[in-house]
Amino acid sequence: MKNIYFDNQASAKVDDRAIKEMMPYYEDFFGNPLSLHQFGDKPREGIEKAREQVASLIKANPEEIYFTSCGTESNNLAIKGSALANQKKGLHIISSPIEHFSVLYPLKTLEKMGFDITFLPVDGKGYFSIKDLKKAIRKDTILISLTSASNEIGTLEPIAEIGQYIKDKDIIFHTDAIQTAGVLPVDVNRLNVNLLSLASNTYYGPLGVAALYIKKKTRILPQLEGGIQEDGRRSGSYNVPAIIGMGKAAELALDEMNKRREKMVNLRDNLLERLEQEVEHILINGDKKNRLPGNINVCIKFVEGESMLLLLSDEGIALSSGSSCTSRALKSSHVLKAIGIHDADAQGSLLFSLSPYNTMQEIDFTLEKLPLIIERLRQMSPLYHKFLKGEDIYENV
Amino acid sequence: MKNIYFDNQASAKVDDRAIKEMMPYYEDFFGNPLSLHQFGDKPREGIEKAREQVASLIKANPEEIYFTSCGTESNNLAIKGSALANQKKGLHIISSPIEHFSVLYPLKTLEKMGFDITFLPVDGKGYFSIKDLKKAIRKDTILISLTSASNEIGTLEPIAEIGQYIKDKDIIFHTDAIQTAGVLPVDVNRLNVNLLSLASNTYYGPLGVAALYIKKKTRILPQLEGGIQEDGRRSGSYNVPAIIGMGKAAELALDEMNKRREKMVNLRDNLLERLEQEVEHILINGDKKNRLPGNINVCIKFVEGESMLLLLSDEGIALSSGSSCTSRALKSSHVLKAIGIHDADAQGSLLFSLSPYNTMQEIDFTLEKLPLIIERLRQMSPLYHKFLKGEDIYENV
Repeated sequence: MKNIYFDNQASAKVDDRAIKEMMPYYEDFFGNPLSLHQFGDKPREGIEKAREQVASLIKANPEEIYFTSCGTESNNLAIKGSALANQKKGLHIISSPIEHFSVLYPLKTLEKMGFDITFLPVDGKGYFSIKDLKKAIRKDTILISLTSASNEIGTLEPIAEIGQYIKDKDIIFHTDAIQTAGVLPVDVNRLNVNLLSLASNTYYGPLGVAALYIKKKTRILPQLEGGIQEDGRRSGSYNVPAIIGMGKAAELALDEMNKRREKMVNLRDNLLERLEQEVEHILINGDKKNRLPGNINVCIKFVEGESMLLLLSDEGIALSSGSSCTSRALKSSHVLKAIGIHDADAQGSLLFSLSPYNTMQEIDFTLEKLPLIIERLRQMSPLYHKFLKGEDIYENV
Repeated sequence: MKNIYFDNQASAKVDDRAIKEMMPYYEDFFGNPLSLHQFGDKPREGIEKAREQVASLIKANPEEIYFTSCGTESNNLAIKGSALANQKKGLHIISSPIEHFSVLYPLKTLEKMGFDITFLPVDGKGYFSIKDLKKAIRKDTILISLTSASNEIGTLEPIAEIGQYIKDKDIIFHTDAIQTAGVLPVDVNRLNVNLLSLASNTYYGPLGVAALYIKKKTRILPQLEGGIQEDGRRSGSYNVPAIIGMGKAAELALDEMNKRREKMVNLRDNLLERLEQEVEHILINGDKKNRLPGNINVCIKFVEGESMLLLLSDEGIALSSGSSCTSRALKSSHVLKAIGIHDADAQGSLLFSLSPYNTMQEIDFTLEKLPLIIERLRQMSPLYHKFLKGEDIYENV
């Protein structure tokens, strides 16, 4: 069996139906949507339709959807744009240690500029709590940015509950919903957020496009400056075909959400249970049930994630060990650290991200191969032999 | 005759050969280039090939090419990234009043942060001079950003001469070459620039991708922060198909540059001469010969540009009146103002941007229609009647 793809969070195949919708905008409707002549009409109509499709996905108004080039850009705009626009009101920001780097790095930059960041603690499953949030809020808090679900551990966070609590306060609430929007029901009104990041490729739309929901009256400063596109909040030529594809994919995601979710949850739970049964010394990271439908994150003790990936790749099975954005950086995960996983164990992490297009046969094949690979690597692992001798494996790691 | 497209600077049809190259990266090679498994191999190789193709276009080293999402992003990164990275050395920046808004707006933002910006004067054709530059340079000058050619008036600026003069000074030199790279020979070594912006769609590559040349050792701070892509200088998921398309289009642009240029210059000069002959009271903006091969910018006195555009669009002829990024903002052009065009005349500007795919028949057809449209609009123009009576038309405008 070849080409089993369990790395959909890193990059997913674009739905053929979305590509089909995009092609006329390469071939025929290539005008600038802002132009006054006839070549602008179709692209302009197409973009506005896509804006409605994306808005429907998260129950927003179309005029609250701002197209960007990627999820990282949406998060950067949300964090830097809102912090800089509201800095006269205060310099305090609340976030969490399990955010994506496209939230954490902008926060670091803001910290250097004089902002003060509080990171909420998370528990062993990766949950942050409203209790800790209440304690963290200060008079000068202007922004709270909390992920809807970490792309690594997949735990679904209590965003609606938090939104309910802060909705009457004069604080901007942002959630990075890049892993949930298009996969699970997301309703900006129920969440009570001011800003919400979402990305097209999460739900099988094209790369090169994402969006930021900006609730009416939310003060935000543009980060890409130059033209009048997106009300001046995001300048730059419209990537028309990609926007069309994101719109179509949003429509499909909404239509097929339940079916897709059911399929993925079924595969996920099967894989997870059998991994627990068939592999000794395994840690399941995140909440076992209340997690992203396609996400599995485990630590296989005494072995290196990268070695497993390479041997799995030889068998035709593709997955990641941690966040895709840093997979070649070979650093151990800040998210696993935050939920209390020891560095030695974090080294052996595997991140499966399934799609509705995976099959039970692929799961079966993986479970034939993976335990053998683990066994083979453990035999070569000094850590494992130390463990067998009863020595402390966490010493000096 | 229908669908005559003279608005290629605003948005150009992507070359079929570039699209053909992109499609396998939608269909089959959809992995994340940063992944450790087999699905990452083809995308990674494809991106590195594209990087070489783009580098060849401007005689750079591949590792000096950083992919972004659009020309606006490249300019923003160049300006804000280099100013913020070098602010300890000084706060003075030199630029010109004919830059694109994606240069001017970031400069405005920097000004608010305490930077001091000097705008060089330009002459009636839009040239800035080395003499004025010499006067403007101060001890605390850290950055000079000058366009290679304005997208509006098309005059080719003396970038190489300026680069030669400042190359031994400790000043970062950026040029916005979005209109020239891929159209005319561009050599970063001959220009002696540290930073150069270029965009894919200028030379019939896809939208959603552009690049910034960053010369080795140039200090610059990332503006989109989050991952390890592009050495951390530009984070965000790779828009793989678009990058592949930009690379292929760069290869084609290099191969066919002379042929394309010759074709466009021929069409341009023909249209320009006949416009001068057949339309009374016309101003030709920019240098008549030393200009972008496909660019014509004229002011038709006593009429509104927008009215001409709409009537031309009825005849199937598409063009712009000023910069595409603001065409719906209906403001008069800052570039025309800078070269001394009176507001009343600037209102009547027409911007033709030709491609090698335009034909002499299209020029002929346009010259059949345009003079009649102008005559019709002039008959309705109070300004024109004022002029015929010998009154001062510039009064109170």
